[in-house]
Amino acid sequence: MPDRRGRLITIEGLDGSGKTTLVSGLESALAERGLPVLRLREPGGVEVSERIRALVADPSLTVHPHTEALLFAAARAQLCAEVLLPALDDGRWVLLDRFVDSSLAYQGGGRGLGLEAVARINELATQGCRPDRTLLLRVSRSTGRRRLDDRGGERDRMELEQDAFFSRVESAYDALATGEPERFRTLDAHKDASAVLVDALDALADILQDRVTS
Amino acid sequence: MPDRRGRLITIEGLDGSGKTTLVSGLESALAERGLPVLRLREPGGVEVSERIRALVADPSLTVHPHTEALLFAAARAQLCAEVLLPALDDGRWVLLDRFVDSSLAYQGGGRGLGLEAVARINELATQGCRPDRTLLLRVSRSTGRRRLDDRGGERDRMELEQDAFFSRVESAYDALATGEPERFRTLDAHKDASAVLVDALDALADILQDRVTS
Repeated sequence: MPDRRGRLITIEGLDGSGKTTLVSGLESALAERGLPVLRLREPGGVEVSERIRALVADPSLTVHPHTEALLFAAARAQLCAEVLLPALDDGRWVLLDRFVDSSLAYQGGGRGLGLEAVARINELATQGCRPDRTLLLRVSRSTGRRRLDDRGGERDRMELEQDAFFSRVESAYDALATGEPERFRTLDAHKDASAVLVDALDALADILQDRVTS
Repeated sequence: MPDRRGRLITIEGLDGSGKTTLVSGLESALAERGLPVLRLREPGGVEVSERIRALVADPSLTVHPHTEALLFAAARAQLCAEVLLPALDDGRWVLLDRFVDSSLAYQGGGRGLGLEAVARINELATQGCRPDRTLLLRVSRSTGRRRLDDRGGERDRMELEQDAFFSRVESAYDALATGEPERFRTLDAHKDASAVLVDALDALADILQDRVTS
């Protein structure tokens, strides 16, 4: 266990896989256990990071894939330095909607930059901070797309990518989960929200147990 | 020699060391030899990069050192993809005022992030592109400061750093030059401008000769 008192739990998966719903459920469940929970999603309300993400999303600019990967890492570096690392030092249980694995899957896999190159730039960004557990929500593209359609609203640049892009993202996620079985738990996100929450709590049982006995 | 027809010559050193004057002199001298010269300085008029640099320089923001290093690398990635690599592919001789070595010296050395960590993020940014020759203008801090004073105007955030910071920057530059003697040439920038230009052309003689005989 790293030399800090808090725990970092990240939630990963395609848009439409139910990450936001799961984070809400986990937030309540952990708070009920008396744990000091902090819920975050990148860019996390940190001004420098918000400005960086606005630049990445600006439709008037043509941001090169390498630039995009470095900008996401820069936004993450500021979030880590300003909020995430201090919260962990302070003993908080942080529930984080997307983290380094999203960059590995989307830029490393989807955009074809390679997992290793993207991992390297993110090591500086996170100051070596790794999640204690990562929950990967696995959903078929058709279900994910249907949920996004039901949600309505404008699609962002990432959501407008083609199926081949998302296949590469999924393969990258799977490779990450296979490579780090201790950290990753893959959940079937076709189930209904309450069943996914039960599975998620099962997948966190050991680190919750750790906390009770320590 | 890399698989491209152009050459990349970078000019490095502290502010006040005479980089801009030397680049002007070299630009004329190379053009007189009939070489297709392109003169650049980061962020190079590339819109994405200009926007990134404006963010780094915004005095209302507190940009963390890791974020700063990643943002400089992001701006560089866009310059490389949009302008620098296409120009080299096109056979241009590019004179570039500051490049990766500036990040290594200022963020790696000056801000203490370490040369290796900064080198890693810049490898993605440059797509592995390295200068064919780097001219390091070496000047004492007192001379550099006097020249900046003579120049007048506002000092930017970097120029307002303390002497200890600049000592670390200088040491990092020296370590880089020592580590890559084939690529680096250190020039005594206390000399007058025309003498520095003569020394610089001497320091480029082999790659200029290469061009003539190839």
